[in-house]
Amino acid sequence: MNRGKTPLTLDATVLRDVLDGEWTEARRRIRDLCEDPALHLPADGTLEDMRAATTAAVGAVAESGLARLPMSEDEGGSEKHGEYVAGFEELVTASPSLQIKAGVQFGLFGGAIMHLGNDEQHAKWLEDALSGRLPGSFAMTEIGHGSDVAEVGTTAVYDVDAQEFEVHTPFRAATKEYIGNAARDARAAVVFAQLVTKGVNHGVHAFFVPLRDEEGGPLPGIALEDDGLKGGLPGVDNGRIAFDQVRIPRENLLTRYGAVSADGDYSSPIESPGRRFFTMLGTLVQGRVSLDGAAVVASKLALDIAVRYAHDRRQFTSTSPVEETRLIDYQRHQRRLMPLISQAYANAISHDTLLHTFDVVFSGEDDSDQARELLETQAAGFKALSTWDALTTIQEAREACGGAGYMAENRLVGLRGDLDVYVTFEGDNTVLLQLVGKRLLTDYAKELKDIDFGGAARLIGAQAAEHTLFRTGFANIGRTISDLVTVSVNEKRVRSGKVQEALLSDRVDTMVASLAQSLRPARSMSQADGARLFNEHQNELIEASIAYIELLKWQGLNTEMHRIEDGGKHTEEAKVLRRIRDLYGLSLIEKHMGWHSMYGRLPMARARLIGPTINSLCEKLAQNSLDLVEAFGYGPAHRRAPIADGAEAARQDEARAYFRAARATSDWPVDEKELRKRAARR
Amino acid sequence: MNRGKTPLTLDATVLRDVLDGEWTEARRRIRDLCEDPALHLPADGTLEDMRAATTAAVGAVAESGLARLPMSEDEGGSEKHGEYVAGFEELVTASPSLQIKAGVQFGLFGGAIMHLGNDEQHAKWLEDALSGRLPGSFAMTEIGHGSDVAEVGTTAVYDVDAQEFEVHTPFRAATKEYIGNAARDARAAVVFAQLVTKGVNHGVHAFFVPLRDEEGGPLPGIALEDDGLKGGLPGVDNGRIAFDQVRIPRENLLTRYGAVSADGDYSSPIESPGRRFFTMLGTLVQGRVSLDGAAVVASKLALDIAVRYAHDRRQFTSTSPVEETRLIDYQRHQRRLMPLISQAYANAISHDTLLHTFDVVFSGEDDSDQARELLETQAAGFKALSTWDALTTIQEAREACGGAGYMAENRLVGLRGDLDVYVTFEGDNTVLLQLVGKRLLTDYAKELKDIDFGGAARLIGAQAAEHTLFRTGFANIGRTISDLVTVSVNEKRVRSGKVQEALLSDRVDTMVASLAQSLRPARSMSQADGARLFNEHQNELIEASIAYIELLKWQGLNTEMHRIEDGGKHTEEAKVLRRIRDLYGLSLIEKHMGWHSMYGRLPMARARLIGPTINSLCEKLAQNSLDLVEAFGYGPAHRRAPIADGAEAARQDEARAYFRAARATSDWPVDEKELRKRAARR
Repeated sequence: MNRGKTPLTLDATVLRDVLDGEWTEARRRIRDLCEDPALHLPADGTLEDMRAATTAAVGAVAESGLARLPMSEDEGGSEKHGEYVAGFEELVTASPSLQIKAGVQFGLFGGAIMHLGNDEQHAKWLEDALSGRLPGSFAMTEIGHGSDVAEVGTTAVYDVDAQEFEVHTPFRAATKEYIGNAARDARAAVVFAQLVTKGVNHGVHAFFVPLRDEEGGPLPGIALEDDGLKGGLPGVDNGRIAFDQVRIPRENLLTRYGAVSADGDYSSPIESPGRRFFTMLGTLVQGRVSLDGAAVVASKLALDIAVRYAHDRRQFTSTSPVEETRLIDYQRHQRRLMPLISQAYANAISHDTLLHTFDVVFSGEDDSDQARELLETQAAGFKALSTWDALTTIQEAREACGGAGYMAENRLVGLRGDLDVYVTFEGDNTVLLQLVGKRLLTDYAKELKDIDFGGAARLIGAQAAEHTLFRTGFANIGRTISDLVTVSVNEKRVRSGKVQEALLSDRVDTMVASLAQSLRPARSMSQADGARLFNEHQNELIEASIAYIELLKWQGLNTEMHRIEDGGKHTEEAKVLRRIRDLYGLSLIEKHMGWHSMYGRLPMARARLIGPTINSLCEKLAQNSLDLVEAFGYGPAHRRAPIADGAEAARQDEARAYFRAARATSDWPVDEKELRKRAARR
Repeated sequence: MNRGKTPLTLDATVLRDVLDGEWTEARRRIRDLCEDPALHLPADGTLEDMRAATTAAVGAVAESGLARLPMSEDEGGSEKHGEYVAGFEELVTASPSLQIKAGVQFGLFGGAIMHLGNDEQHAKWLEDALSGRLPGSFAMTEIGHGSDVAEVGTTAVYDVDAQEFEVHTPFRAATKEYIGNAARDARAAVVFAQLVTKGVNHGVHAFFVPLRDEEGGPLPGIALEDDGLKGGLPGVDNGRIAFDQVRIPRENLLTRYGAVSADGDYSSPIESPGRRFFTMLGTLVQGRVSLDGAAVVASKLALDIAVRYAHDRRQFTSTSPVEETRLIDYQRHQRRLMPLISQAYANAISHDTLLHTFDVVFSGEDDSDQARELLETQAAGFKALSTWDALTTIQEAREACGGAGYMAENRLVGLRGDLDVYVTFEGDNTVLLQLVGKRLLTDYAKELKDIDFGGAARLIGAQAAEHTLFRTGFANIGRTISDLVTVSVNEKRVRSGKVQEALLSDRVDTMVASLAQSLRPARSMSQADGARLFNEHQNELIEASIAYIELLKWQGLNTEMHRIEDGGKHTEEAKVLRRIRDLYGLSLIEKHMGWHSMYGRLPMARARLIGPTINSLCEKLAQNSLDLVEAFGYGPAHRRAPIADGAEAARQDEARAYFRAARATSDWPVDEKELRKRAARR
């Protein structure tokens, strides 16, 4: 269907290195590990089969040494934080259930002990946690408080006489809920509870609480329930935990950010309770970083399957009277899949920059407040967009494979069900974007940082008010675009990176400035009125955050494209990256074209060129689409979708061979239609 | 959070009658039936449990008499086609598995016998099919040909000596695939195959083919496979059927549109093979009509659950220091749910107009080609949009319920998985929209009807070329909007129905005219070049079809609103319907704002009012949102989601009671934060 254009000659390994980024070796090591069927879910298992298989696979991950990477060198690790998270993300290719269950065991349970515990506590529990010998839970979320974790209802009251904490669930909504490992495996949990000593509530702290005895039965005072079936993640045993006056030794409080002496005196290295709490939560940013990367892996797998199928699958004759047309050659099919490929490239490359920031902060290379806040903001925003993108991508891939896409054996519906929860856990996306928005505002206008924004945004408000001004780099992105849009209009001009960046960044600039203007009166309002004013702009705030994250992702992709261009070695790959960047940028601009037009940023003549330019980019990229997915670095053992690896091609070949042979025989039935046409001619 | 505005006082039963439409009694009867737990899927069953329960439920549906409604009065029915389909749609409240399995048994298998069979064939099989005693399949789709059904590979070759047809699967891709009832239950199938007699292929015809013996084993030459796990619909036993030279009597050809005499002569009441085939397919439009309605039911259930939860669930304090804010009071939450409610209203009301057309055609009141083509076009377009809308709606509802929405017990993830396949079966949505587009084009410009558009669009091309010009009513929608947009701008003006209709219809008008202009050269091109030109505009064509269907849905909602307004009896309900219409219309205009601006239809000042007007409509509708979902007519036995019917409210009440009591005690721990504030004041 292409009009004689020659596809680019691409080396997929060059693109793979671009996508895999800084920790390419770690990714490939875990991908190799994930080819082992022992790490996959059983095809037709019961819920218990899925859970048992995932538990066993967590053990295999522990044996691979992955979980030890972030440990300090003193404790037998190598303090490789970026490599650790990169490896974890690739576990999605075995199954998202494994990624999440391993994440609970090593990243959350083990990570909480590592980051919140002291040396004795490390000695007591860390080795067992990271080897998987001590299966554990991370019990933060409660039925009544998901996003607003500062308000959990569980209490841990210090009893001076016994030198014990009493952990208690005072009402049903304070039950720990959706807790991974709780329904089946966990022997212990890190429990987040309000620490009370000497009549004072010092806020949420983490406690090590044993849950089950050696036989797997619940310990006295512990009530465990099974969450049962979910929308996905069948290998993860989520459950509920309630505590009925459960006694734990004083030494089970993880003391990094708050300790209680034998006689009940509280002390903390961080004076402000608000800052203390957010610092404690800050160690958990790793979860969001890894979900951003995991969402990219899942998107790549889905596109890999759909693109390969689109090259094999044929439906309807069009240009030829006998040969049916491949799906990949239909314009709408290209428009469905190619923008998602460009988005996956943008998300993968941006994720690598996030992972780099993460590594710099966690390795201590730059553990400044500024670096940490940049990390937290980007992790929140990137995770929100990439997890939503994963759902859109997997769904489009599933629809692009038609009925075959709906069959569990072709993997797409399972991936989608698994990834579904990523958009609301480890921070609900809507809440995360409000945190990003608040950062944008306080960066834009210092005086806004003292406003009590109410609701979700207060979470970050408390922190921003106490830290130095957060550096989004926002002040640099504003620029006048009038000089860029008045010049003559043609496709090349529409594809200009400067125009794309100007439009995207000007949109963020204008939205934030307008919000700041609207919210300024809140300073002199009562809490209730201020909250109402804030609420009237909540939607705008979230849209501004999305625009900001989209800009960052475009910039990440653009920078990487220039790096390859400037390297001069890979001209064809640089060319395809430019097409990808343009398609990503123009798709964003098309999505927000109403805004750009409404604010006079995009003249009509230029706006009308965007659609045709996108069509043309999609057509060109479709020609190289097999290379583009080959660059994802996955093989049949990762895709595990029969339609993507030969089944459809074999059937199509057999059918075409049948018709070719049949047409050559003398007794092949003639079509009634054909007879009528001949008769009409007579 | 509302600023003292008073909600409207609404009678939900008035709105319910608006939504339920012409067959309101039939809907309520089946809803009552669906409250019976015997019709529901077992909560924790195996795949076999789900299938067995659904098979039993199909029996209960047969006993209810629903399946007999469309039969002729001679044969014991009442020829109530609209009532029949309306009732079927409501089966979704029991489970989509039941709706689909019953649809296969009665609508497809029974329907094919009814609409394609002769009197003797009715006498032989119809009663058994509609009573469920003879479980059957509808075997049309093949692995290699889903959307392009004219090209199925299965053959049925007439053997004069034996007076039998030999049904055969000549290659693997010709295996019947995704066939409901095939994996477990079907004793027979209506099989679509190329009818060959005396060396001539007369195209696809339907044959009655026995599949299993009394013990349930496959008959000689029949190979059956189980599709196993899918993305949803666990109660439906989809499978594959292949035929190895299977012999059936000549009398098993369903003869309404084509018969073969004992000595092998073919005859048909319809001369043209193309028209014959499409007329045969036309009897199947019922499936698409019922999927449009089923998608509306599923969307309503999901919104019902999410809105009720949003009224009970609280998270973060904002306007009050101690009382947390309800989700429904957050602006973003309103913006997430209220436009979807307006869309559900538009889809429900429009569906009723479609069902009316269906009833008029199938009852014979107006069985003209024009009426039938209008029905087919609207069924294709409505089904495409409403099934996509259902997926978006259920997903947004699931996310709006956070982690609780991901738990299977709250029903949303199951509904979504079930509805997923609705977008690609009974006509892939992308293919259906091309059929709509082709109709739009041929209606706009007669000369375009002779072009071979290639690919999917040819399906309809063949038909349109032989029928009288299809009447979309399209010629009437164009109007100049310049007079409407130049007047003074305020919110009221933006909410003007005339402005909304002018913008929506002008968009369709302009898009179709531009497409026609672009495609005209195809008339003088070769097939290959014409197909290429067509493909270069495929995306535009689909977008134009979507725009057209959106306009029809807006018009349906608008007409109904005016009917209630003009009735004068229900002023408050009319007011809320006007808000719903405005929100639906403005949401569409906002979605396409780039287009409206790009073509100079929407001045900047007016465009900027749309966002704030939508915010304000969402806030007002949120105040009445419980009434709006109450009007859907479902109770706890339909929703079956604990979070929507009291579980969350009870937990929240208990927690608030706990804190109220605690704050009143003298030994309630004081917050460290509070102590620090007091210390700072000293």
